Amino acid sequence: MNQRGFNFNPGPAVLPEVVLRAAQGDIWNYQGCGMGVAELSHRASHFEEIIQDTEKLLRKLLGLSEDFLVLFCTGGATQQFSMIPMNLLRKGEVGSYVVSGVWGDLAAEEAKKFGEVHISASTKDSQYVKLPEKYDVHPDASYLHFTSNNTIVGTQHLVEPESQAKPLFCDASSDILSRPIPTEKYSLIYAGAQKNIGVSGVTLVILRKSLLEEIPSGLPLLMDYRTYAKSNSLHNTPPTLSIYFMRETLKWIDSLGGLDAMDKRNRAKAHLIYNRLDASEFYEGIVDKGSRSLMNLTFRLKDASLDKTFLKEAESRQLFGLKGHRLLGGFRASLYNALPPEGAQALVEFLNDFETQHG
Amino acid sequence: MNQRGFNFNPGPAVLPEVVLRAAQGDIWNYQGCGMGVAELSHRASHFEEIIQDTEKLLRKLLGLSEDFLVLFCTGGATQQFSMIPMNLLRKGEVGSYVVSGVWGDLAAEEAKKFGEVHISASTKDSQYVKLPEKYDVHPDASYLHFTSNNTIVGTQHLVEPESQAKPLFCDASSDILSRPIPTEKYSLIYAGAQKNIGVSGVTLVILRKSLLEEIPSGLPLLMDYRTYAKSNSLHNTPPTLSIYFMRETLKWIDSLGGLDAMDKRNRAKAHLIYNRLDASEFYEGIVDKGSRSLMNLTFRLKDASLDKTFLKEAESRQLFGLKGHRLLGGFRASLYNALPPEGAQALVEFLNDFETQHG
Repeated sequence: MNQRGFNFNPGPAVLPEVVLRAAQGDIWNYQGCGMGVAELSHRASHFEEIIQDTEKLLRKLLGLSEDFLVLFCTGGATQQFSMIPMNLLRKGEVGSYVVSGVWGDLAAEEAKKFGEVHISASTKDSQYVKLPEKYDVHPDASYLHFTSNNTIVGTQHLVEPESQAKPLFCDASSDILSRPIPTEKYSLIYAGAQKNIGVSGVTLVILRKSLLEEIPSGLPLLMDYRTYAKSNSLHNTPPTLSIYFMRETLKWIDSLGGLDAMDKRNRAKAHLIYNRLDASEFYEGIVDKGSRSLMNLTFRLKDASLDKTFLKEAESRQLFGLKGHRLLGGFRASLYNALPPEGAQALVEFLNDFETQHG
Repeated sequence: MNQRGFNFNPGPAVLPEVVLRAAQGDIWNYQGCGMGVAELSHRASHFEEIIQDTEKLLRKLLGLSEDFLVLFCTGGATQQFSMIPMNLLRKGEVGSYVVSGVWGDLAAEEAKKFGEVHISASTKDSQYVKLPEKYDVHPDASYLHFTSNNTIVGTQHLVEPESQAKPLFCDASSDILSRPIPTEKYSLIYAGAQKNIGVSGVTLVILRKSLLEEIPSGLPLLMDYRTYAKSNSLHNTPPTLSIYFMRETLKWIDSLGGLDAMDKRNRAKAHLIYNRLDASEFYEGIVDKGSRSLMNLTFRLKDASLDKTFLKEAESRQLFGLKGHRLLGGFRASLYNALPPEGAQALVEFLNDFETQHG
């Protein structure tokens, strides 16, 4: 195969083709400077411009006030599972966690190493197929943590849990910049870049400045948010190529009209596929309809004996990455920002043809 | 400028052109699979092959026995400054540090957060321009840590400090795979990739398996070497694109004949420039001749009023990244693996011409 297919991978995931085309040129000779973008010193003006542009675009797209810092960390969301309680779970208080999916559960488990954890709500017993209906906020909570989109099972909090004046922290790894959010409600938002905003290797952390005052001393240098805040994320060599890819991806989002345009685009893709899944008994969605994610659409074939054939035929049509997570089985179509509407259309056509042939 | 110049950056640094050419194709469509390399799931067979190839090439090039694990971490060498004492500095023992440069000093300072530190040798008082002449090894040392090449000042330990049967740990960030080393002497070798073996965003850690037994429980998940060991560095999404670049760079090193060939190539480049610097009074090397690095060559103009002109004229000849570190001033030519011999030759010609014009 010499042409690109449609990539429904859950992350690392599809990138905008315009970003890939720019990168092909820039890794050879960045803006004609005589060096490739991955070969630039992180102290050079060219790279400083890249990281500053990235921050500016994030501030613009999310409408972030000056109350927030924008930090570039490493280690993905998992490293944040540790950093959050190490930095921000105060002694004598509790970290309150909404467990609406596997990642929220892992975040809470990791926090137990560093302090007391309170479960605000959990749908673990129902395998996370439905969002919690209510949230308990502990009176001594340092924060309320939730996962805005659950990549594995395919649910999404389109409305934030009510944090009752406690700082609201969000793992937005799988829906960051896919739609507008009321950032003023949040105190910390973090996301690995490899789903909606670039390639793996860099983790975006958006943090209310006032939280820096509460950090205890003695933390490992790169586990302390202040290290990034003091140095504009340049304490040591950052993942420069990953930050470049984020900048290019944000430029692309901005060029399409920002988060309102992304939201419209993403809803259209998701509705097209959900409508098709709901149109016959041949397919069935996995999660509660009211909890459905716009990013990761999970479904099963009523006749599971066709599963292997389904995947094989999908791949023969260049529809990649549809296999469901090993914990859940079935199928998952991840429709992140960069998945083109034509990809969703191609999947619907395949769903139609597959049912016609095997239904 | 539309052509590439010669890049003497200290890191991120020059990459082999064959690697850049491969990456240009692979980020668009990896091996014709229909997706770019940065868009592959880290659980997909294509990426598994990349990370496994990377490990195999490292084992081959370094001649690593099965006693060693090869791990891919993030956060650069700085994160290792924390992870080493958190994982391997035993209670009641000390971490022994050779402080022959700024990075060794920072490693020792960071270790003090987690246990007792012993300074095996230090040349801090002489601004690190000479390697220590002897090393004291504490009888209760958990390990002896040294920095094999000092990027900032430009010295290099071409022979390992004698660790007197204590485990020898090495920050090899700036000379990893630049020459053969007797790996059996070492217990831990780590290196950020962005100097000799790829782009920033991934940190190579080579660890003697037996050390895993000593790690205390309760560490942050991604600060615990066991997390990487148990999962083949796939506990969570690794920096996939950075690992791809490492694999391509290692393939290139292997294709040129491995570490013996690299050593020959790197010595030839360095000697060419050192010989030219020593050939007149117009230039002066900064460090002791017996301590000179083959990777980072530091020098000054006798007449510092010409510094700006020197840099400007160098850049006009497409010789980039020659400015010395801010702590030291002067100039630095970093001659990592990927800097072609023609680059060293071009620098010598410039040194000749500049002296003729301004001497």
